[in-house]
Amino acid sequence: MNEKTFNDVVAHMKNSGFVYQGSEIYGGLANTWDFGPLGVELKNNIKNAWWKRFIQESVHNVGIQSAILMNPNVWVASGHVGGFSDPLMDCKACKSRFRADQLIEETTNGEVNPAGMSNEEMETFIRERGIACPKCGAHDFTSIRQFNLMFKTFQGVLEDAKSTIYLRPETAQGIFVNFKNVQRTMRKKLPFGVGQIGKSFRNEITPGNFIFRTREFEQMELEFFCKPGTDLEWFEYYCNACVGFLKDLGLKEENIRLRAHEQEELAHYSNGTSDIEYNFAHPIGWGELWGIADRTDFDLKAHQDTSKQSLEYFDQETNEKYIPYVIEPSVGVERLLLAVMCEAYTEEKVGENDTRLVLKLHPNLAPYKAAVLPLSKKLSEEAMDVFALLAKNFSTTFDDAQSIGKRYRRQDSIGTPYCVTVDFDTANDGCVTVRDRDTMEQERVAIQDLCEYLRVRTQF
Amino acid sequence: MNEKTFNDVVAHMKNSGFVYQGSEIYGGLANTWDFGPLGVELKNNIKNAWWKRFIQESVHNVGIQSAILMNPNVWVASGHVGGFSDPLMDCKACKSRFRADQLIEETTNGEVNPAGMSNEEMETFIRERGIACPKCGAHDFTSIRQFNLMFKTFQGVLEDAKSTIYLRPETAQGIFVNFKNVQRTMRKKLPFGVGQIGKSFRNEITPGNFIFRTREFEQMELEFFCKPGTDLEWFEYYCNACVGFLKDLGLKEENIRLRAHEQEELAHYSNGTSDIEYNFAHPIGWGELWGIADRTDFDLKAHQDTSKQSLEYFDQETNEKYIPYVIEPSVGVERLLLAVMCEAYTEEKVGENDTRLVLKLHPNLAPYKAAVLPLSKKLSEEAMDVFALLAKNFSTTFDDAQSIGKRYRRQDSIGTPYCVTVDFDTANDGCVTVRDRDTMEQERVAIQDLCEYLRVRTQF
Repeated sequence: MNEKTFNDVVAHMKNSGFVYQGSEIYGGLANTWDFGPLGVELKNNIKNAWWKRFIQESVHNVGIQSAILMNPNVWVASGHVGGFSDPLMDCKACKSRFRADQLIEETTNGEVNPAGMSNEEMETFIRERGIACPKCGAHDFTSIRQFNLMFKTFQGVLEDAKSTIYLRPETAQGIFVNFKNVQRTMRKKLPFGVGQIGKSFRNEITPGNFIFRTREFEQMELEFFCKPGTDLEWFEYYCNACVGFLKDLGLKEENIRLRAHEQEELAHYSNGTSDIEYNFAHPIGWGELWGIADRTDFDLKAHQDTSKQSLEYFDQETNEKYIPYVIEPSVGVERLLLAVMCEAYTEEKVGENDTRLVLKLHPNLAPYKAAVLPLSKKLSEEAMDVFALLAKNFSTTFDDAQSIGKRYRRQDSIGTPYCVTVDFDTANDGCVTVRDRDTMEQERVAIQDLCEYLRVRTQF
Repeated sequence: MNEKTFNDVVAHMKNSGFVYQGSEIYGGLANTWDFGPLGVELKNNIKNAWWKRFIQESVHNVGIQSAILMNPNVWVASGHVGGFSDPLMDCKACKSRFRADQLIEETTNGEVNPAGMSNEEMETFIRERGIACPKCGAHDFTSIRQFNLMFKTFQGVLEDAKSTIYLRPETAQGIFVNFKNVQRTMRKKLPFGVGQIGKSFRNEITPGNFIFRTREFEQMELEFFCKPGTDLEWFEYYCNACVGFLKDLGLKEENIRLRAHEQEELAHYSNGTSDIEYNFAHPIGWGELWGIADRTDFDLKAHQDTSKQSLEYFDQETNEKYIPYVIEPSVGVERLLLAVMCEAYTEEKVGENDTRLVLKLHPNLAPYKAAVLPLSKKLSEEAMDVFALLAKNFSTTFDDAQSIGKRYRRQDSIGTPYCVTVDFDTANDGCVTVRDRDTMEQERVAIQDLCEYLRVRTQF
């Protein structure tokens, strides 16, 4: 069997209703993507699994949904107005534009990490190493200019500096500015976490690799507030919790690694940062999936300083006032979805000459939990009753086109864990045949037991 | 008992963790709102109920999630670049800015409907009726200018006309441009619907009434494609389905009305449009909640004309090619949430001198399905085991502060349908006391039956 490639996975997602090019009939729009009927179900299932694990099941944590449009001073305090920018340089010969840090990383095959370099250091490095323009080969770059990655817009009828606002580049700040609101209205005591799932926007110069990096994306961020001094313990806890979550979703241990940031990569305020990397299908390989950072009191302090509102916490146990420390696990939905798809995509040999394409998704993540298939079109009415029963409880599909074998394969290829076949015995014995996606084994199940049968097998 | 007012409902939402002012510590940002821990749960439950009813349970319908940022030609085709604007006029005396149509509607107490008027007709009407500036009383308005309601932004490094894109003002167009993609990849035959839940943005001049009208909001839109000639039947079907859904969510029949648009209100392309109006708490009263429109082939035809891509459907039964007609039920999540809260908010007399505040939410919509309450702090460990059991299956909260009576009232006020009390008998008999929010009756339930007990009572 050939090894699966990233292109195989992408082509399958595009052809089978997971992802379409955004605004496709108009020739698209840069690197935007729309999620089709299967993609949106998978995405919702991933978001629900995260919410269940990190919000619902935790006695400490709650969720919020803050607005995408925020007061511009939020981004002054957070440092995004001043510092959230890419170092851009142009090739004077061919006018192509590059990110200086990416240029260094790519031309040194990742051996040099430009994360800690200043603009001057990067310019010097590029000059001294004789790094050439990847497009035309010239050695004639402009100096570096910083380009802010926030999308700007104008609120109200005038388009001027006063009415300029930004599309949020991350969901985290919506949590920080609500720290007091949540603590007060929910009567929370430390430690507690506040999580959010929502869209963020970054005007990336070089988005790419399909949905790996896009200008518009969804984040799942948790800000876990704790007493200073307990932070490293919680940092450890969340590193493990995130890795555990990924394994529970079905990502294999050998495809996951936790990489602690080196001292020179570490932000000055951070007590520790680790990335969970995933081994995406060839030729992408290892890429960042989930960042977990101990951000100390940096964010709350910055907002307290800028807003002049106290963000201190009064600790009733010790009678102290302090600004909590925060642990931030932050993951992108689309990137996690891509990892899940890379993991699940399987071309499997069947018998001597046949192969089947199976998406071995965790049953809870599968777009459809069950497909109802009448063995003959004559059985469509009875099958529709079974569909109605299941659809009350699960995302279910119905298919009566072509042979049963072809329909099984079609469901395999979109990850449906259970095919429920209604046949000519069903009317007599009140049973259906349930076929398992992975083992391809079949089992006779009474219709009255079917919901419980599926519930047990598809829960997360 | 006093009649509840809109202000009561809003104050309660702000004080108890449903909604906070957006960017509050920075003095807010216009009319933006953040949803707190209870608000986000309620919002998610409303979205899930819609998705279940209109997507999951329907054999015809599927969902998608299209990008917020779309190719600008989408908005040329849809008419938003040319026509999605408000008629603004300024008072020359005090410089206040008004929407001419709102000015007419408000100063005539809704007796005159300006929907069909041209700018000239509105100007004449305002002059002839002697309508004065509501701020300063002057009769000196500028003429009307059209102000486009789409938020603009720039993609890429240059800020010019070529890089101008818009934040979508509605989710519907993301469905229309994917009509062919969905039909092809999902092998759909007419009739079929495509639904989407997502954020939209409108640069409203006069947002207001709390979360009733905001610049950033979430829509739940379904585009149901059908054969021309069958459209009025499906229009009728969806008018009934939407009203039925609202009643099932717990909105009372007397607070819902379906208002068919008059001929002069009707868009030229529409075969019929109806609004479902809801009677919001005093003094808001009747307001638009859900629009259901028979849009014929207007949208697909416009996109076919502008994109030059065929959006025709080949009908295998009749061997015909045609552009489908579409029925569009469109509702805003925040507005529906507000209706649900107005309906649920109840001040109830208890005994002689006491009142309790109860949110009589449909149990499926309640932010928490259950609250676990240890009768004494000594029972916290056992209670935590019950919490862990329930939280695996439901959104659950835990509260061990203050007297049990106060805790019951607190849960009543946030709509928790079941309080689960762990007492000193629990260790012996393996049972807990379950209190019903609405009847306040208590029942002894075995812990092993508790999940099923709650599941049955909280499903939608």
